[in-house]
Amino acid sequence: MRPVVESLEESRIREVANAGMGLDGVLKFWFGESDEVTPDFIREAAIASLNVGETFYARNLGLPELRHAIAGYTHTLHPQLATDHWFDRIAVTSGGVNGLMLASQALVEAGDEVVVVTPAWPNLVAQPQIMGARVRTVPLTVAADGAWVMDLDALLASVTPATKLLILNAPNNPTGWTLTRDEQAAILAHCRRTGTWVLADEVYERLYFASDTANGAAPSFLDVAEPDDRLIVAHSFSKSFLMTGWRLGWLLLPKALTHPVGKLIEFNTSCAPVFVQRAATVALQRGDEVTPGLVKHLQRCRDTLVPLLREIPGVQLAEPKGGMYAFFRLEGQDDCLATAKRLVREAGLGLAPGSAFGPEAAGWLRWCFASRDPQRLAQGAERLRHWLRTAA
Amino acid sequence: MRPVVESLEESRIREVANAGMGLDGVLKFWFGESDEVTPDFIREAAIASLNVGETFYARNLGLPELRHAIAGYTHTLHPQLATDHWFDRIAVTSGGVNGLMLASQALVEAGDEVVVVTPAWPNLVAQPQIMGARVRTVPLTVAADGAWVMDLDALLASVTPATKLLILNAPNNPTGWTLTRDEQAAILAHCRRTGTWVLADEVYERLYFASDTANGAAPSFLDVAEPDDRLIVAHSFSKSFLMTGWRLGWLLLPKALTHPVGKLIEFNTSCAPVFVQRAATVALQRGDEVTPGLVKHLQRCRDTLVPLLREIPGVQLAEPKGGMYAFFRLEGQDDCLATAKRLVREAGLGLAPGSAFGPEAAGWLRWCFASRDPQRLAQGAERLRHWLRTAA
Repeated sequence: MRPVVESLEESRIREVANAGMGLDGVLKFWFGESDEVTPDFIREAAIASLNVGETFYARNLGLPELRHAIAGYTHTLHPQLATDHWFDRIAVTSGGVNGLMLASQALVEAGDEVVVVTPAWPNLVAQPQIMGARVRTVPLTVAADGAWVMDLDALLASVTPATKLLILNAPNNPTGWTLTRDEQAAILAHCRRTGTWVLADEVYERLYFASDTANGAAPSFLDVAEPDDRLIVAHSFSKSFLMTGWRLGWLLLPKALTHPVGKLIEFNTSCAPVFVQRAATVALQRGDEVTPGLVKHLQRCRDTLVPLLREIPGVQLAEPKGGMYAFFRLEGQDDCLATAKRLVREAGLGLAPGSAFGPEAAGWLRWCFASRDPQRLAQGAERLRHWLRTAA
Repeated sequence: MRPVVESLEESRIREVANAGMGLDGVLKFWFGESDEVTPDFIREAAIASLNVGETFYARNLGLPELRHAIAGYTHTLHPQLATDHWFDRIAVTSGGVNGLMLASQALVEAGDEVVVVTPAWPNLVAQPQIMGARVRTVPLTVAADGAWVMDLDALLASVTPATKLLILNAPNNPTGWTLTRDEQAAILAHCRRTGTWVLADEVYERLYFASDTANGAAPSFLDVAEPDDRLIVAHSFSKSFLMTGWRLGWLLLPKALTHPVGKLIEFNTSCAPVFVQRAATVALQRGDEVTPGLVKHLQRCRDTLVPLLREIPGVQLAEPKGGMYAFFRLEGQDDCLATAKRLVREAGLGLAPGSAFGPEAAGWLRWCFASRDPQRLAQGAERLRHWLRTAA
């Protein structure tokens, strides 16, 4: 076995989940998914496809119908370019994570330097490592109010002509950090000079609560990029359409990359199931019935949880502008993996340890607030408060 | 973009299919799939899962129920080891091709030497190339009767201590070549000495017509291997269960590799959809309702097509013992890609060019005989005969 594969970071979230195995009544906020089932009409589209027998191989890049739907969706959010422009820049992938892995396969030679802004979900660091890259992380820092912020100058200084690829995830999992349009423009301009590719994980684009953009979504690199920029944007059906378990996402690519990525899809998964793609097509066509309501609900979840957490002595957190996570520091609990394990066993509260997302986030905990019933969040906050008072 | 990705072989089968785009009435035998829809009861299991809302993330290595079903299936075919032995050696993957890619990711460093026996489906060569390996191919040769045969001594001589991985696909796509148990034992013994991993693509194991084995299946490396051998066997639900479009397969691994492969799954696709895994579980549980009838039917297909092809002047082929392909040489048609394009346009016959599978198969054509209606095969053979007489 390759040493790099052996040394890939174990999922610390999984480690906490294992600590809670067999325990009853645990309130689980550790994984990055809502507890809400995919809407009926999306599931029904998959069922209809199965009933008519769509059980055969499909094209590597995805069903044309789905790619057209994605093109329309992209145009609606980023109207600078026509719908038709997008079709040839879309590759449907077997999940957002699969799209990100394909991007690393397309760009990263063994020995290449890759820069990743952290904290970030572990996959962003692991994927270029699997391809043999030397990964350097550039950590966000914590402001006085507990918000994670980026030192733009430090980031730009760390990206040099030796940097093949820069990977960012904003709105960010776990911190809720978002990029401004100006920062995106500055990063892109810098990377044009250094010849560095930008891989932007924008799967939380729609889960944005700040109401300070024209489209309601978080700022996107697409809004400041030229069609031929060295930019790949990764998306997923998981978060905005409540479709985590379907394993479907897409990449937006410079046109010249679409065909090669199609070849990589052939050699990785060949294609996504047609019945899954039919469901996703309907999800986009009737997206107004899902995403706006979901965003409103997530905002209510955030606004339920964050004030309750802030009232707890020793908790430090800033209100996240996007995403679906409350990321907070617990005073005196620097070994957050141990804390998370104790919380699940002693308080019946399932959170993810910050150290899962980068060493700079040791002492932090991630709480996914995507919960159908916001009362579960209040109940969880009460468990945390009680545990801190009595057991910690 | 990486030069190796740019230079990955285009799918020549796709090129032929494109040549037939928009043409009516083409008899298509070019892809490696049956034209039969997945059986009702398998689709119904997926539908039931969707109806009860199984739309969430699942474990990296697959549902325990499915892994148990695979363990039982493996034990039935290879009874040397108990069912319980297998569970910890199983990783469920997003298709057989995905399993093979994960195996390359687990084993192959950039610069490593990988040996692939060809002709083979192009993915087996492309995957280690994507990981940066130096791939050497060891070609089968053609015997007097048109059968593709392996020179065992030549293969063993080509695998040295410098060889990290040996990849073989038998029963073979496209040639129908199979390995004998003695050959498998000799290869394994040799690879033990050189420290070389063996990656055996055995997805056609069940599609075997020779009736010369105890289990009715083709000889498998599992029957000659020790549990800790450096051996990975790749399987798929596609061929034996008529589930090509579902994208589900599995790997049988040395126990020490299962957990690391689970990490790789996290970073590639995270998991396969639960509803797909439910369907696969039922497919295995009620496999007797699918596979034996399918094998019998495929044998009838083979026995319909092969004699008809052999009657055609200029055609050379041996009867394949396994798989679902008739692979034949057409005298005087050395540019088989051009021939395949002409056949689709001029004769309405869709075949795959042999050169798609290795340069040594130039001048050959692959015919997938997995057809619900064997009369389509006879009709296709008649088109070939007519075209050769009048147009070629």
